[in-house]
Amino acid sequence: MKEGSKHPVFILHRPQMGENIGAAARVMGNFALPELRIVAPRDGWPNETAITMAVGSPVMDAAQVFDSLDEAVADLSVLYATTARPRDMLKPVLTGREAMAETRGHVEAGTRVGVLFGGERAGLPNEAVTRSNAILTLPVEPGFASLNLAMAVGIIAHEWRAADPPPAEFRPLEDPASQDELDRMYRHFEEELERAGFFFPPEKTPLMIQNLRNIFARGGLTIQEVRTFRGAVKALTLGRGKHRVVRGD
Amino acid sequence: MKEGSKHPVFILHRPQMGENIGAAARVMGNFALPELRIVAPRDGWPNETAITMAVGSPVMDAAQVFDSLDEAVADLSVLYATTARPRDMLKPVLTGREAMAETRGHVEAGTRVGVLFGGERAGLPNEAVTRSNAILTLPVEPGFASLNLAMAVGIIAHEWRAADPPPAEFRPLEDPASQDELDRMYRHFEEELERAGFFFPPEKTPLMIQNLRNIFARGGLTIQEVRTFRGAVKALTLGRGKHRVVRGD
Repeated sequence: MKEGSKHPVFILHRPQMGENIGAAARVMGNFALPELRIVAPRDGWPNETAITMAVGSPVMDAAQVFDSLDEAVADLSVLYATTARPRDMLKPVLTGREAMAETRGHVEAGTRVGVLFGGERAGLPNEAVTRSNAILTLPVEPGFASLNLAMAVGIIAHEWRAADPPPAEFRPLEDPASQDELDRMYRHFEEELERAGFFFPPEKTPLMIQNLRNIFARGGLTIQEVRTFRGAVKALTLGRGKHRVVRGD
Repeated sequence: MKEGSKHPVFILHRPQMGENIGAAARVMGNFALPELRIVAPRDGWPNETAITMAVGSPVMDAAQVFDSLDEAVADLSVLYATTARPRDMLKPVLTGREAMAETRGHVEAGTRVGVLFGGERAGLPNEAVTRSNAILTLPVEPGFASLNLAMAVGIIAHEWRAADPPPAEFRPLEDPASQDELDRMYRHFEEELERAGFFFPPEKTPLMIQNLRNIFARGGLTIQEVRTFRGAVKALTLGRGKHRVVRGD
């Protein structure tokens, strides 16, 4: 396998606005796609607006600029042409999700993959679509189909990672309560409710208990939350006297 | 089921930049999510920059503005809080893909769902996260995690549709060739190659035929493409004489 081939390369073909180039570099950085190539940007290079919009993305510093599409894709094998309008061309048509799933297989096998994005006004020229293995298009609303260029880049960059789990720092840190801890909490709560005369008529007691327990079972309580809730029940019953019946108060 | 509940509502909480509100309305229009609610936009409402960036999105015209989050979510049942940073809170954590899959189940059952997005600088306040059923976060690069607000809206809007097929107008129109048409094309091509002395040494012929046929089988040819290729073979062989051997020329 070739060095550095574990991700697709994104290629912007003749982009016009620095805003979009910078926003593309930013979102590629968000989703750990390091390789951005830019073919003949309208406003030249470097572009101050692009740098501002990239807000320090490492993808911006590493971006490569080419004069022609031929040069920009010379080392790549599989190409996807993103387009919002159908071309009079016989070519497989994939969604972003499908194309990124396929891309994962390609890069695992060491195949270099490129995703081509056209400029804001004209999109990709037909010759860029012709040389591509497949068309990549998103399931947009037919009556309002025009996606912003950076948005298209971001959506496909996210699809590259969309099956990943949330970042590690989001994983819950605290320990979930055991069934025994939950059982003891339920019994504590229900004993106090019984003492308060809550279960009426008596034949409904099993159903009422079932409904109450379901509230907590759905919540997936932690050990600390069990302690907190038992403390709350205790606080509500303190000083209430042993056999007071609230019903009818 | 309530009227108009077949999609999640997106709520921007105290957004700052009109650019992002407009870009959010645009991309929600792209993915047919009609309901945008905006809580206390910094620069007031209506916002000219937002209107410009929305490029005519019908979502912009229908957007509702509220003074407080309480009012904006009053009629909704299930809420997701999007956040890029972990909160000191025990709450299920879902990716965009997971949350939108869950949302599809909720809206099918008639449950109203809201997705909350915080303003550019501060994100969502803790009280908004507390009232939410789950945290929604994207699998971003930990060292470069800050997503643009409109980009986050767009990525989640796309996830709402990401399992859909490409728009209907992208479906191939022409008829695929039948196996019989392909067989006849293969035999035509191979007969001409045989006459040209291409299959050498003779014992390699079956393998060479297999390799050639695989090129075309992978391509999924249409009837018209079969005709075109047969025409190309015919053109190459016209006037070549019947038994000329090219090998050694």
